[in-house]
Amino acid sequence: MTPDSDRFLASLHALRAIGAVGTGVVRPAYSDTDIEARKWLAEQFREAGLTPYFDPVGNLFGLAGDGPSLLMGSHSDTQPEGGWLDGALGVMAALEIARASKEAGGPPISVVSFQDEEGRYGVTTGSTVWSGGRSLEEADKLNASDGTTYAEGRARMADLVSGDFLDPSRFTGFIETHIEQGPYLDTEGEAVGVVTSIVGIRNMQITFTGQSNHAGTTPMHLRRDAFQGLVEFAARLNVRFAEVVRPETVWTIGHVALTPNGASIVPGKAAFSMQWRDGDPQRLNAMEAIVRTTAEEVTRERGLELDYGPLLGLEPVAMNDRLQQALADAAEAEVPGRWRRMPSGALHDATNVARHMPVAMLFVPSINGISHNFDEDTDEADLVTGLKVLARAVSSLSG
Amino acid sequence: MTPDSDRFLASLHALRAIGAVGTGVVRPAYSDTDIEARKWLAEQFREAGLTPYFDPVGNLFGLAGDGPSLLMGSHSDTQPEGGWLDGALGVMAALEIARASKEAGGPPISVVSFQDEEGRYGVTTGSTVWSGGRSLEEADKLNASDGTTYAEGRARMADLVSGDFLDPSRFTGFIETHIEQGPYLDTEGEAVGVVTSIVGIRNMQITFTGQSNHAGTTPMHLRRDAFQGLVEFAARLNVRFAEVVRPETVWTIGHVALTPNGASIVPGKAAFSMQWRDGDPQRLNAMEAIVRTTAEEVTRERGLELDYGPLLGLEPVAMNDRLQQALADAAEAEVPGRWRRMPSGALHDATNVARHMPVAMLFVPSINGISHNFDEDTDEADLVTGLKVLARAVSSLSG
Repeated sequence: MTPDSDRFLASLHALRAIGAVGTGVVRPAYSDTDIEARKWLAEQFREAGLTPYFDPVGNLFGLAGDGPSLLMGSHSDTQPEGGWLDGALGVMAALEIARASKEAGGPPISVVSFQDEEGRYGVTTGSTVWSGGRSLEEADKLNASDGTTYAEGRARMADLVSGDFLDPSRFTGFIETHIEQGPYLDTEGEAVGVVTSIVGIRNMQITFTGQSNHAGTTPMHLRRDAFQGLVEFAARLNVRFAEVVRPETVWTIGHVALTPNGASIVPGKAAFSMQWRDGDPQRLNAMEAIVRTTAEEVTRERGLELDYGPLLGLEPVAMNDRLQQALADAAEAEVPGRWRRMPSGALHDATNVARHMPVAMLFVPSINGISHNFDEDTDEADLVTGLKVLARAVSSLSG
Repeated sequence: MTPDSDRFLASLHALRAIGAVGTGVVRPAYSDTDIEARKWLAEQFREAGLTPYFDPVGNLFGLAGDGPSLLMGSHSDTQPEGGWLDGALGVMAALEIARASKEAGGPPISVVSFQDEEGRYGVTTGSTVWSGGRSLEEADKLNASDGTTYAEGRARMADLVSGDFLDPSRFTGFIETHIEQGPYLDTEGEAVGVVTSIVGIRNMQITFTGQSNHAGTTPMHLRRDAFQGLVEFAARLNVRFAEVVRPETVWTIGHVALTPNGASIVPGKAAFSMQWRDGDPQRLNAMEAIVRTTAEEVTRERGLELDYGPLLGLEPVAMNDRLQQALADAAEAEVPGRWRRMPSGALHDATNVARHMPVAMLFVPSINGISHNFDEDTDEADLVTGLKVLARAVSSLSG
C-alpha cells in the first residue's frame, strides 16, 4: 500500500483547526470543540468507506466491515491547553492507513478515537470503560475539576450514540501511533521509536501530621513540623532510590498541600503525592518498600503521624512481540539506524486495549520533548516517516 | 496598692463571654463582637474613673486625667478562632491596676486596648498606625482575607471615634502583660516571665522557577523540578543554620505553593515563605546571608530561576532597663526563684509603642504552650500572680 502523505497532513491540519488556539488546540473531552471534532471524524470515516460507530461513552470507531479487522488509532480529545498532535496524530495516521489499505486491496483496518484519554474525568477513561477496567456505573460518578460528572459529560453527546459497547474480540490487534512526549528521539536525531512496553505506575497520597503552632514562640526542638518531615523524606528517598533505579525510572512529588499554610505558622500537616514509574514490576515494588520504610522512619523520628491514601497501581504492559517486530523491521527498512526501541513513560489507551488483544505503539519525536502545551510540535518530515513505517508494518503483518 | 483578684478575674470572664465559642473566643478586629467588647470596655473604663477615648482606627484608651500617666494594656481583638487570654489578659490586668492605684491614691494609670493586633488587615495594625509605623492612608488599603479593606473595617466603628490620634508623649511608659504563647514557663513550672526583648523577624517570599513537564516522559536528569530544589534548599539550610543559631532562634517554611501542583506533573514553580526570628540583629543578618547563599547555590546547580519577594524586617526591640528591673524585682518578691527573664518570640503592640516611650512586658504561662487556639489557657493562680507582680512593680516605679 502507498499512503498519501499530503492527504494525511491535510487531514491532520483540518482536525487541528477545530478548537485551535494559537499553535495549540483546546478540545477537552465532551467540550463543544471535542464533539465537533468527533462529528467531523465520523464524516471522514464515512468518506473513507468505514462505518462510524459511537459507543455509549463517545469512543468513535470507523469500522471496516463486520469481519475481523486490525484496529488502529488513539484519541482526539486534548488537554485543557493541548498540542495539535497528542492523540490526533494516531487517529489521522490510522485513517490514512485505512484509506491506503482499502485502495490497495489490503487488509481491513478499523480506526478509533477513544474518548477522554487526557483524563478530564479519570485516566484514559474511554478506553478504560470499553475494556472493562471500570464499570460505566462507577465511571459515571467521576468528577471533572469543574464539578461536572462523567455522566453529565457523556450525556452531552448522547444523541450521537450508535449502540452498545463493541465486542473487542472483533479486532485482531491494536496499533497506536503517538508523539513521544519525551526528549530521547529529538535529542538523538532519530525519526521513530518502537515501544517495548508502557511503564507501570504507582501513585499514592501520603499525609504527615504534626502540630500547627506559632512560628515565633515554638522552639525548634519542640516542633512537630510536617513540612520539615516532608523535606527529610524527599531528601532521604532520593539517596535510597539511587540504589535501585535505572536511567528510565522516574519519581515525582508533584502535589503538596500544607495546613494551615501560613508564613507565621509551623505547618501541622503536609499532604503530598508520591508517584513513581518503571517498566519492571519488581522494581516498582522495591521502590514502594523504600517509600514506606522512609516515610515510617521519618515520621517516627519526628513524632509525626503517617497516613497513606489508596495506592493506585497500573502494571507495566509489554507490547506484543509480533506487532513490535513488524514495526521494528519497517523502521529499519524506512530509516536504517535512525530509530530505537524504547519504553513509554506515559500511559496510553493501548494500556487498556491490551486486556483484549495484542497491542503495539510507534513513537515520533517531540521537539524539545514538549507536550501538554501549545508549543508541542513535530517536524512534518518525521510525521510522514512514521506514516510510512506504519504502512510497511501493516503490509507485512497481512503478508 | 492592693489589686482585687476576684474583681480582676470576674472582669476577665465578663470579657470572655463576648464572642465566646466553647472555651474560645471569636472577636476578630471590627467584627460585631469586637465592637461590642470595646463598647463594654469603654463602660468599664468610665466606671473605673478613666475617660474612654476611641482614636480614628478604634484603639480604645481609658485616660487617667490629662497629665502624664503610665500606659498599660494590650488588645481585645482575637484571632479568627482565638483563646480567651491572648490580649484580653493585658487589658483587664491594666484596668485592675488602674482601679487599685486610684483606690490607693497611687500613680495615674491609663489603659489601652489596641485594635487589630492579630493582623486581620496587617500586623499589629492599630498600634502600628498610632505609633507612626504606617500612615493611615497606606493602612486603609490593606485587605483582609475576605477582601474587605482596613478603611471599610474601621468605618464600622466610625460613630464611636472620640477624636484624632492621641499624642504618645502624654504617656511616661508602657507595660504590656501577655500570655507567653510558648512552652518555657509551663514546662519549668514557673509563674511569670520578665521579657528582655521582643525578637526581630525577617520574612521573605522566595520563588524557584524550573520547567513543568510530564512526570512520566521526562527523565530525572533533564528535569528542572522546582520542588526538589526547595527540598535541597531546606535541607542544606538546616545544616548551615546550626552553625549560627542559639536555642531561642527559630526559622520556618510555613507556606508552600507549587505550580501546577498536580501529581503527574513535574513542578515548574515553588513559591514559599522563609521566616526567621532572633533577638540579635547581627544573627538575623548572618541568617539572611545563609538564606541567600543557599538559595543561589541550589538554583544555580539545578538550572532554576530565583526570585526574592520584598524582605519584611522588624528589628529586635529591647525592653527598657528600669521597667524591666521593676518587674524582675517584683517577680522575685512575689514568687522567688519561680520566674525567669526571657525574650518574646512573638510580636506584640509593645514593639510599636517602643518608638515613643520606654516599654516592658510581663508573661504568664501558656498551658502546653498553646495559643491562637480555642484550647489556649492559663491557671487562674498564675493570672493572679501576674497581677500581683504588676502591682508591686507599678508601686515601686512611682515610689
